[in-house]
Amino acid sequence: MRTFRVELGPQSHPVHVGAGILDQLGALARDAGVGPTRIAIITDSCVGKLYATRAIASLHSAGFVAQLIEVPAGETSKSIETLSTVYDRMAAAEIERGGAVFALGGGVVGDLAGFVAASWLRGIALVQIPTTLTAQVDSALGGKTGINLSSAKNLVGAFYQPRAIVADIETLKTLPDREFREGLAEVIKYAAILDAPMISDLERDLPRILARDPAALELMVERSLRHKSQVVAADPHEGGLRKILNFGHTVGHALEATSGYGKYLHGEAVAIGMIVATRLSEKHAGLNTEEGSRLCTLIERAGLPTRLPDSHLGANLAAALRLDKKRAGSHIEFILIDRLGHALTHKIEIEALVSEIGW
Amino acid sequence: MRTFRVELGPQSHPVHVGAGILDQLGALARDAGVGPTRIAIITDSCVGKLYATRAIASLHSAGFVAQLIEVPAGETSKSIETLSTVYDRMAAAEIERGGAVFALGGGVVGDLAGFVAASWLRGIALVQIPTTLTAQVDSALGGKTGINLSSAKNLVGAFYQPRAIVADIETLKTLPDREFREGLAEVIKYAAILDAPMISDLERDLPRILARDPAALELMVERSLRHKSQVVAADPHEGGLRKILNFGHTVGHALEATSGYGKYLHGEAVAIGMIVATRLSEKHAGLNTEEGSRLCTLIERAGLPTRLPDSHLGANLAAALRLDKKRAGSHIEFILIDRLGHALTHKIEIEALVSEIGW
Repeated sequence: MRTFRVELGPQSHPVHVGAGILDQLGALARDAGVGPTRIAIITDSCVGKLYATRAIASLHSAGFVAQLIEVPAGETSKSIETLSTVYDRMAAAEIERGGAVFALGGGVVGDLAGFVAASWLRGIALVQIPTTLTAQVDSALGGKTGINLSSAKNLVGAFYQPRAIVADIETLKTLPDREFREGLAEVIKYAAILDAPMISDLERDLPRILARDPAALELMVERSLRHKSQVVAADPHEGGLRKILNFGHTVGHALEATSGYGKYLHGEAVAIGMIVATRLSEKHAGLNTEEGSRLCTLIERAGLPTRLPDSHLGANLAAALRLDKKRAGSHIEFILIDRLGHALTHKIEIEALVSEIGW
Repeated sequence: MRTFRVELGPQSHPVHVGAGILDQLGALARDAGVGPTRIAIITDSCVGKLYATRAIASLHSAGFVAQLIEVPAGETSKSIETLSTVYDRMAAAEIERGGAVFALGGGVVGDLAGFVAASWLRGIALVQIPTTLTAQVDSALGGKTGINLSSAKNLVGAFYQPRAIVADIETLKTLPDREFREGLAEVIKYAAILDAPMISDLERDLPRILARDPAALELMVERSLRHKSQVVAADPHEGGLRKILNFGHTVGHALEATSGYGKYLHGEAVAIGMIVATRLSEKHAGLNTEEGSRLCTLIERAGLPTRLPDSHLGANLAAALRLDKKRAGSHIEFILIDRLGHALTHKIEIEALVSEIGW
């Protein structure tokens, strides 16, 4: 097990990454100052079947009284309707001020359960137990929680830090291939914006990673989380620096929105977005084309999509970019890289952008 | 206009109390660092009719673009259903990260709109414009926001401080008599727990206060808010000291819960709770009976109820006390006073309590 701390002043907390550590959940939570007390495990119908019994057993042996709250698997559970159901079950489970929420699952569960913890009795303890690669390397860390409205994603939420993150690498074994590859998009992103040597290491280790070798995964997840934790520690409320984590996300979000949520997984849309951002980096930020090609090749080798399907309507995507919340007047603020491992922000005129990338 | 600051470190903010200052709302918000920008005014169907036009005019003249979001008047609007409706209207109004929520109304609007501000885009600026006496002397200050579930009140919420509080004394003129008197319960509470000379001043000024003399009201509201602000500044998240603000509230909450919400206004239930707490203070905390009688007389002179109606089932109330969240095992932690102006906490055994106060 690898352990480090996210430094956030009074909200600092440990992060544990390791194979099989779900069985240490109770003890790790206690070490982080949570309970033992009456707590709720919020999970989804898929993850719950696989891991809830082990999580509960570990919590019970550490003295916790655990109530399981299961929501349907899928992004639709990040809704105010599901939130309302979870609140009612929190009330029925009599979760009190000294209690806690344990979020067992992927990004949807982490975001939903995190917001429940942030808002239950004006905030109770939260432990994140990410079980997908995307959640382990990205969404479980940083304190972003929330739900979607029908009009847009993540409009409602809170910045709320967990007391601990427990990432059990073994849970990645049961992850469908497409979801596993999706998570690699965020891993490659950290390398692209913050860590050039990590690009070489990923180029070398990719076969072992795709074969889900536990040692390779543990190393990769910890390295990704350390990068994210340093960015988050420097900018907990996304005031500035944290924006660099949006590399590939401007076009990625627009693609998700216009293709109908669900067609592309988030990481797949981000992969295409990183390809676009790389091309723009060559043109606007002086990225040398050899480095740009290495990055694109790595994305492709990870089994991620690298281009828009022919059928996709570029015009819709352009319209979505025009609506992007990072828009400032007629320009969009893009995250670009001027070399592998170093990001910067750059404003690009929307209409020029649309013609440049050929939509 | 009287102005002071609530000292909460980076969340410090000004409080303005005065007659007619609704017309300065836009300028006061700008002075507090809010906008001018696109903002939402959340209000209810009663208060909106009376004051929204003036609030909007003041905001417009200061450069704001204001969208009005009106919810039905009454406690039922502190629900997840109304919250969901408000979120949809926030999306339609395109309130962005740099935007703000202005809460124009009483405690229900302040709690609901405060939680909207806390959770919209993970937190945007909030200005409280309390228009009832209860909201002006109590609920608008302190950062408690939230909604009710069908199972219990205030289970969901956030601690979220406003950027400014603008309490226009003139709005109290239109308040129904019963709601005005309700607010006096909280005023008397501050005197009882923190400020003995304020008891004498209230005894002297009560006729002018009940006649809603603006000068008397301005003085009383400011004095109450200063007391609350000092308690909140010392304990923003209700870790200890802030508990003293619950004087009269343990029995008050139980009374509200068992009589069916709506039968007693909150302040009326607190008034009865203060009478009980005063009796318990004489018995358990050495409060001298003359001081106890002065306090009870003041509550009565304010036109507040001082006893349970005969028809009320004491057994239900006892059961509700047994469920109180401040319960620790078989004891309830009560806030008592050992003399006028000085509070302390005291644990009382529930069964002894029930027999003592004769239910």
